[in-house]
Amino acid sequence: MDHIIELARKAKDASRTLANISSEVKNKALLLMAEHIRENRDRIIKENEIDVRDAKRANLSSAFIDRLTLSEHRIEGMINGLKDVASLPDPVGEIIRMWRRPNGLQVGKMRVPLGVVMIIYESRPNVTVEATSLCLKSGNAVILRGGKEAFRSNRVIAKILRDCCREVGIPSESVSFVETTSRKAVKELIKFDDCIDVIIPRGGEEMIREIRNEARVPVIAHGKGNCHVYIDKDADLQMALDIAYNAKVQRPGVCNAMETLLVHKDKAREFLPKIVRMLKDAKVEIRGCKETKKIVGDIRDATESDWFTEYLDLILAVKVVDSIDDAISHIAKYGSCHTEAIVTSSYENSQRFLREVDAAAVFVNASTRFTDGGEFGLGAEIGISTQKLHARGPMGLEELTSTKFIIFGEGQIRE
Amino acid sequence: MDHIIELARKAKDASRTLANISSEVKNKALLLMAEHIRENRDRIIKENEIDVRDAKRANLSSAFIDRLTLSEHRIEGMINGLKDVASLPDPVGEIIRMWRRPNGLQVGKMRVPLGVVMIIYESRPNVTVEATSLCLKSGNAVILRGGKEAFRSNRVIAKILRDCCREVGIPSESVSFVETTSRKAVKELIKFDDCIDVIIPRGGEEMIREIRNEARVPVIAHGKGNCHVYIDKDADLQMALDIAYNAKVQRPGVCNAMETLLVHKDKAREFLPKIVRMLKDAKVEIRGCKETKKIVGDIRDATESDWFTEYLDLILAVKVVDSIDDAISHIAKYGSCHTEAIVTSSYENSQRFLREVDAAAVFVNASTRFTDGGEFGLGAEIGISTQKLHARGPMGLEELTSTKFIIFGEGQIRE
Repeated sequence: MDHIIELARKAKDASRTLANISSEVKNKALLLMAEHIRENRDRIIKENEIDVRDAKRANLSSAFIDRLTLSEHRIEGMINGLKDVASLPDPVGEIIRMWRRPNGLQVGKMRVPLGVVMIIYESRPNVTVEATSLCLKSGNAVILRGGKEAFRSNRVIAKILRDCCREVGIPSESVSFVETTSRKAVKELIKFDDCIDVIIPRGGEEMIREIRNEARVPVIAHGKGNCHVYIDKDADLQMALDIAYNAKVQRPGVCNAMETLLVHKDKAREFLPKIVRMLKDAKVEIRGCKETKKIVGDIRDATESDWFTEYLDLILAVKVVDSIDDAISHIAKYGSCHTEAIVTSSYENSQRFLREVDAAAVFVNASTRFTDGGEFGLGAEIGISTQKLHARGPMGLEELTSTKFIIFGEGQIRE
Repeated sequence: MDHIIELARKAKDASRTLANISSEVKNKALLLMAEHIRENRDRIIKENEIDVRDAKRANLSSAFIDRLTLSEHRIEGMINGLKDVASLPDPVGEIIRMWRRPNGLQVGKMRVPLGVVMIIYESRPNVTVEATSLCLKSGNAVILRGGKEAFRSNRVIAKILRDCCREVGIPSESVSFVETTSRKAVKELIKFDDCIDVIIPRGGEEMIREIRNEARVPVIAHGKGNCHVYIDKDADLQMALDIAYNAKVQRPGVCNAMETLLVHKDKAREFLPKIVRMLKDAKVEIRGCKETKKIVGDIRDATESDWFTEYLDLILAVKVVDSIDDAISHIAKYGSCHTEAIVTSSYENSQRFLREVDAAAVFVNASTRFTDGGEFGLGAEIGISTQKLHARGPMGLEELTSTKFIIFGEGQIRE
């Protein structure tokens, strides 16, 4: 495993240089990457076709193969992503605040890169480009560890990105690709806190748990989203229908889609028959509590395990609750602290929900589907943190930085 | 170990209630704590005397016994600390920023408590009060684990603090005290990431390393401070002497004291004889590089290990460097990323040093001794983070919070 340790050491060395490279040079690298991805798209697609062929032979699911496949359209998406990140402001060196102390010291906080970011991801090869562009722009070296099924696609992309770094004078070790699919390499790297500053795992719960248990490097996990929409007693009916439908149906396979719908008992008779009809028309399977069944009839029973489940599919658990307190308690018990929404016309209830629900993003009168770096105006995202330390919710460039205190004096000493 | 797990679970439950308790009630608790500490000072001192007696019997160092001992004066310090924290603004619920998206969504970030903070510390019983006050004010439950030598002192203080919580209607489990000195209890707790959100260890390197290696809960460590002062070619002589002297001598046993002095070769002949005389008068032992010895004569050789050492004592390593580049490289190689200072009259060098030196606090023309929550204007500190994730440098109330995104809509759905 010596070459793995060597890779991490070189990434650390590169990060020290990269931390002091100007925005101009970093943007030049990003735009060059966009150009070279475009020029080499046939080569990328050729490698990707081999990955896809192997995945099909291995009988992987069609959803998996869809995520793995790189079309011209998706490559266009990578290119545009690179250009977008080039156009975002550089967070490095930004002085967030500065204040004067009674003794005349000027104390401030300046953004600095984290150092070396290792990203562990699964089947989508475009993450290779997204992660690299965000790390590079924020002055961090990146260690890329994609899923073994996308190995050839990721390798060819990473090679292109590295070459672009070298061409503009950035150390090519700023972009490191783990050239083995062995799990032992990962197990080694996640313990190597001398050289790696943070690990961002994106993928299934099992994978994240394993990394968290074994890592010595700090982990920021993109965890699961068991998201709720709560329709309050005073909700506007049409708004409630629109939001609940959108949160479930617009893209059910993603972490910010609704998995459980909570409805106030005084709204249930008016709201439930309508939304259930709309959802059934969209081929959503409904699993309801007793009260829900009384109102809408022919649906499956929701079991205890349904309340915990992130379906990522056209399935929805529905529960009638007695009050906003019940809704908040249900979310506290079963939620995953990702995204929660209330639809209400009550000022008091909107404020209570915002304050008391513990989640990375809490919405009043909007769809859960907006939890996203782009939608929030961060420009891009490297993941969505479902933990509380360092970053919470969609993580953009700022979340890939730390700060240092900078202090300007005129000879002050401490008495 | 069931009761230990139970303690953590209860702390988690308490943290949920505490998160929504008003500033008014929290401040009432803090002021009541100040009162009860005053009323019970004889009881506290009596318990402390037993700890001190046992520590003397165990032949612990006089520095250790000094840290352990609670005088009337130190108890007064605790009381004032509690009042100070009561007077600080409450970070919980603060909306840091809010912005409008093109679709009309108002997106903002609100500060929220972390949840449960476990603090592991050594001999100073006043940390029991400081940690509790900061955690309570920031809406976090705290689990206190002090050094076994201060067990009786900490237990009586924690009991008083808990009773004050109960008296104002805050769950007393908001302040938990680990009622055993067994190390097994700590080993259990640091793995319990279901109920504990962060561990802040304060103490020796060995202790911190062990916790970091075994914890599953995220750790924010108050690490060592191998701090440097670099005297640049163009430094003002008197300022250089004042700062170097202050950084070493004013309080040598703390983490922000200078441990190595770096001097530009063109300044060395003028500066070194003077500072060495001043330091020797203050009983500082000097260990120098070859160049230093050539200039100031009769001193010990600095060995490779000296450059790495945090003496925490009246000892100083001195090195003559060829350039600011050499100074920055030396700091990168041997420093601990805590506090670094330059004394210079060169604008360019001040900016380079600020930008290129990687540390929690970087000073221009001021003493390293100012790295402190109070001195920086944070009001108080729970420790000084020497890592990059979540918090870096002195940690006050804000650093004991996370954020959540809050989003106000008018029925927006995602297309």
